[in-house]
Amino acid sequence: MPRKDARRATLNDVARVAGVSRQTVSNALNAPHLLRPDTLAQVRTAIDRLGYRPNRNARSLRTRRSCLIGYRIYPSHPDRLGWVLDRFLHAVADAARVAGYHLVVFTPDDEAREVDTYTALVQTRSVDGFLLSGVRHEDEVARWLHRRKVPFVAYGRLPEESGDAWVDVDNAAGTALAVDHLVALGHRRIAFLGWAEGDRIGDERARGWRAAMERHGLTGPLIRGHTPDRIPAARAAAERLLELADPPTAVVAASDTIAVGVLQAARARGVSVGRDLAVVGFDDTPSAALLTPTLTSVSQPVEEAARLLVDMLVTRLAGHRPSRRAVLLEPTLVVRESSCPLPAPVAES
Amino acid sequence: MPRKDARRATLNDVARVAGVSRQTVSNALNAPHLLRPDTLAQVRTAIDRLGYRPNRNARSLRTRRSCLIGYRIYPSHPDRLGWVLDRFLHAVADAARVAGYHLVVFTPDDEAREVDTYTALVQTRSVDGFLLSGVRHEDEVARWLHRRKVPFVAYGRLPEESGDAWVDVDNAAGTALAVDHLVALGHRRIAFLGWAEGDRIGDERARGWRAAMERHGLTGPLIRGHTPDRIPAARAAAERLLELADPPTAVVAASDTIAVGVLQAARARGVSVGRDLAVVGFDDTPSAALLTPTLTSVSQPVEEAARLLVDMLVTRLAGHRPSRRAVLLEPTLVVRESSCPLPAPVAES
Repeated sequence: MPRKDARRATLNDVARVAGVSRQTVSNALNAPHLLRPDTLAQVRTAIDRLGYRPNRNARSLRTRRSCLIGYRIYPSHPDRLGWVLDRFLHAVADAARVAGYHLVVFTPDDEAREVDTYTALVQTRSVDGFLLSGVRHEDEVARWLHRRKVPFVAYGRLPEESGDAWVDVDNAAGTALAVDHLVALGHRRIAFLGWAEGDRIGDERARGWRAAMERHGLTGPLIRGHTPDRIPAARAAAERLLELADPPTAVVAASDTIAVGVLQAARARGVSVGRDLAVVGFDDTPSAALLTPTLTSVSQPVEEAARLLVDMLVTRLAGHRPSRRAVLLEPTLVVRESSCPLPAPVAES
Repeated sequence: MPRKDARRATLNDVARVAGVSRQTVSNALNAPHLLRPDTLAQVRTAIDRLGYRPNRNARSLRTRRSCLIGYRIYPSHPDRLGWVLDRFLHAVADAARVAGYHLVVFTPDDEAREVDTYTALVQTRSVDGFLLSGVRHEDEVARWLHRRKVPFVAYGRLPEESGDAWVDVDNAAGTALAVDHLVALGHRRIAFLGWAEGDRIGDERARGWRAAMERHGLTGPLIRGHTPDRIPAARAAAERLLELADPPTAVVAASDTIAVGVLQAARARGVSVGRDLAVVGFDDTPSAALLTPTLTSVSQPVEEAARLLVDMLVTRLAGHRPSRRAVLLEPTLVVRESSCPLPAPVAES
């Protein structure tokens, strides 16, 4: 049991109590495989008894490691639903701690020169590697880290030929789940409202919707709207969909932010979501369960992703190859009030 | 301009280019006040030209500083609205970076022995100090850090006699703002729904409501409900308020989470919030603007708090006394649909 309020135990104290040399204690900390198991146990018992903690900075200088993982955080925007940052961050910090690492969160000095901040962190050896999130396929930061051989893992798929490590959710499978669910409820005119082509995540979500529609034989002219990922813009885009001569009976939104825009547009037109119109969002943000009606949404396994990413990065930092380099996780659908069965047809005119 | 893809510049390179000794370069980095201004400028020009970055770990060992600030993050809960963590964290990371620090976020090894994690971070010199949030008046971690003379600042008021540095929002002023607003709308039976007595933040919010009611001469028996900070519990507590023989026409909730419970209870009883019942929340969480009706809520100046906290901590870490040690910030009220005028009385029976 660590002594309380006592002088901080030193390496010498551990060596004395364990009856070994300073070098043996140092080996126990930095190269335990060099010691006989009983010697190692002896040293570890002394470490526990004395509450000894190696000076992280001294160890860092020797090993040239900081035992820190860098993670860039992004500003929130009032017109966009926050991502599940708190869940992801908590899971990453938990997993890092267990692996003996801490998590440094940072913001760039200059948004337009984001890479400079990564450069500075690497050059000052402030972190050993990075965990990226929200990466695009042709990600500038990922490419830069790759070129500089800086260890990193990405939450977001990277080009196969790069050989970089990533974890991602299967975005196409997510929107396909949404379509399957809506088709099972009787819907046929299922629109997709997403952001402009050219964004990897948005394109994958659009592709999943389109493929599922085709799989269900719904190959007529598909209804596809475009909007930036902001509530007011999404509302305007949704209004255009609802004004169509033959409007959709269901909308798959590329994000919960866009789904909120659809809810607002429907309310403004007196269309009751959850009765006249079905809506499915993506990301299962904390607000989804609080909306009126509550929002059906595709959920990402962020905790699992966080654990996998940390495992992969820590393995690489230890000089090993991760057993898995590219992992695609399956999303799930959280069904709530907004996805209703197709209303019974009114009497034919 | 930094050279690209070149060998990392060393202290020797800087000395050579600046035409000074290694010691002079070292002084420029660690004790600039020792140098003549023109010499300092000469060294800094060379540092910029070469893109030289000191090894943070070497510097840390010499100065015995990590240049890292520790911040504990908390898990989210599906029945509770997330705090504005992303806004706060972003502001803290920004302010820390400008001051030459990075932010380490961490979770405790064992929730029941939270202090052990702080101990480990201090003993391994992993961080120079801590930024605490959500502290209670008799905060165990704050007391422990105080006893150990570990530098820290707290978002949350600490006992005056401790002499510790803190920034807080004036919670009582926040609920007073809510009462003033509701009284101006004609309300008189304004209930308070908050968590159990004994929690500093909850008690301050209750006190502000009570004081404002008295200031407005509303000294009849006040309606005060109790609930944990969870949506289902708050809903049940709100149902009890609405079932009173003479129910309130307005509710001041101690949090947005509790306000959501009130909205749900009202909806279940067919009471229209924003017409028959006014509701005000606290914290202006991202969901507030998305609820139906949108929620009037007391907003904390989290960005300002974050900047102040970092300034105070960094000043202390540099060995100086912060010019301000205890700062109480004024909240504001964000008025939305949920706070309606008192409905006109129905014809007397």
